[in-house]
Amino acid sequence: MSKRIGKQSFILPSKPRIVSSASFVGSKEGEGPLGNRFDTVLKDDTLGLDSWEEAETRMLESAVRLALFKLDCDPGGIDFFMGGDLLSQIIASGFAARELMSPFLGVYGACSTMAEGIIIASMLTDGGFSRLAVCGASSHFSSSEREFRYPLEMGTQSPPTAQRTVTGAGAVAIAGTEYNGKTLFNNIAVTGGTIGKVCDYGITDASNMGAAMAPAAASTICACLNDLNTDPSYFDMIFTGDLGSFGSELLYDLCMSKGYDIKERHDDCGKMIFSENQKVICGGSGCGCCATVLSAEILRKVESGELNRILFAATGALLSPLSSLQGESIPAISHAAVIERIGV
Amino acid sequence: MSKRIGKQSFILPSKPRIVSSASFVGSKEGEGPLGNRFDTVLKDDTLGLDSWEEAETRMLESAVRLALFKLDCDPGGIDFFMGGDLLSQIIASGFAARELMSPFLGVYGACSTMAEGIIIASMLTDGGFSRLAVCGASSHFSSSEREFRYPLEMGTQSPPTAQRTVTGAGAVAIAGTEYNGKTLFNNIAVTGGTIGKVCDYGITDASNMGAAMAPAAASTICACLNDLNTDPSYFDMIFTGDLGSFGSELLYDLCMSKGYDIKERHDDCGKMIFSENQKVICGGSGCGCCATVLSAEILRKVESGELNRILFAATGALLSPLSSLQGESIPAISHAAVIERIGV
Repeated sequence: MSKRIGKQSFILPSKPRIVSSASFVGSKEGEGPLGNRFDTVLKDDTLGLDSWEEAETRMLESAVRLALFKLDCDPGGIDFFMGGDLLSQIIASGFAARELMSPFLGVYGACSTMAEGIIIASMLTDGGFSRLAVCGASSHFSSSEREFRYPLEMGTQSPPTAQRTVTGAGAVAIAGTEYNGKTLFNNIAVTGGTIGKVCDYGITDASNMGAAMAPAAASTICACLNDLNTDPSYFDMIFTGDLGSFGSELLYDLCMSKGYDIKERHDDCGKMIFSENQKVICGGSGCGCCATVLSAEILRKVESGELNRILFAATGALLSPLSSLQGESIPAISHAAVIERIGV
Repeated sequence: MSKRIGKQSFILPSKPRIVSSASFVGSKEGEGPLGNRFDTVLKDDTLGLDSWEEAETRMLESAVRLALFKLDCDPGGIDFFMGGDLLSQIIASGFAARELMSPFLGVYGACSTMAEGIIIASMLTDGGFSRLAVCGASSHFSSSEREFRYPLEMGTQSPPTAQRTVTGAGAVAIAGTEYNGKTLFNNIAVTGGTIGKVCDYGITDASNMGAAMAPAAASTICACLNDLNTDPSYFDMIFTGDLGSFGSELLYDLCMSKGYDIKERHDDCGKMIFSENQKVICGGSGCGCCATVLSAEILRKVESGELNRILFAATGALLSPLSSLQGESIPAISHAAVIERIGV
């Protein structure tokens, strides 16, 4: 039986459950509006290790372990860890997987990685290929700046469209119908999703990710609404990650041009994680942004019944330092997961 | 119903079929023993484009299009393209996906990417989430050398353990039971697989990938045999990619130490693609190596009945240029797909 709906979407009849989550963030994220929601706020964003890359790896590994610890479980008890991050060759995830010693599937969707992982893992769970799996994603302000922009030591000033890469790692545990162990969340299921297409509107400014990614978010959100033959009111909220304030405005216009008014039901993880007085210009970004906001805030609201059905539409910019130097524009992608509160 | 077998493996009851494949390679690969098997041998490895990265992107896009052309289909007719490559932020795949305009899922397993893509896509197909999908992977000698080692202009001499990154892109089309369109192959199915764990034996020499990856290949092959409760004679052949000659010898010893003698039934895509007189030292490597050898040679032998059941165990080294500079050792992973000839 096909579980495909329309051109890009799918349903998950067995309703894989999100049974746990965990989040680690840096000190600046800890000072933001969601500061007291995160499991751990780091005082030292190197964790006392030799490099920011090692620190990012350790955060991701720790988030996975903590999500499982909340289930009285450890990495030996899962069917796979599905992870990705922004570093070249996703080394934070690969090195974290080395320590976790679970079967590992590496994914890359830039800042959409958490959503990509969740939809693939949920499909594999629904298909009978996983009893318990963990999806994780991470980013680190300092490792990311030197990967994509300038060495921090240069003290380069950010332009008005810039977003700040979140230092953080989030992880969620996804369980199939066979899982009967302990749960942190009892009422959350992934019930469907939409696989994104790459969109490129010709933006070449690596400090204007919101503009590069807004078309991809609009494409996926509209594809989802179209495939499900519904309208934005079907969802209590549509969360994007990480368009920031500038990209969010573009998103409203793009969706409106396709006949969908989402403004009243939309929030962006990049806007939620920092407050305006934190001087982060357009908000947060990075794989760790929507991964931690989902893990710490959005899932809590679904579990409690504050939200009953949401669309988690993470967005990623598929550039590399080399593609920017070669003058390429910035393609972007957005994957979306439908997350619902299920009957208690 | 769980389709998991043992700790890392799974079965695919609906037997997703590999219905088409395509391969593009560079001129040196075209001069090798499999030269006349590949669909296209490039005379100019830049394809007349401005950079090797653009050329790699074009090769991957072309391989996907050609695999679909053989089915009288185009990228608009597939449920998703699952791709990955060695470049930072997998730009060859991301930019190819921009041109293909299909739903895109990016994966990263270094040189194991083709096997990772095939096992995920086959599970998604078996689960009812795809009618027709394409998996692809690419690498390019020149883009890879400057990504991982030295600028070619330096003329650095290769050490005795070095392998040559294959210039090539391979793609396979995977169809579910609902697919009733044209087929290039009628008798090939993916019937199971094994998700790899990351192994790290402390190798730090980025010119000795065979030694870094052999433990991962041994781990996955032995896990597969153990999970399936069988021995190497269950398979007509076990193909690894890309241990090369040095890594293959290590693999035999490691498997023997776990009680499995695989030497008589093993070949390595890195050894198959070049002949000894081509001066490539230990053989080929890169995502494109096993992707093209599978697409052009191994599948042909399964379709014809020369081989009835094989294990395709691609191996990847999860290093990055930065992790090497930071003195990290090289973790590696291997994913394996069980590919069988099914009743005509």
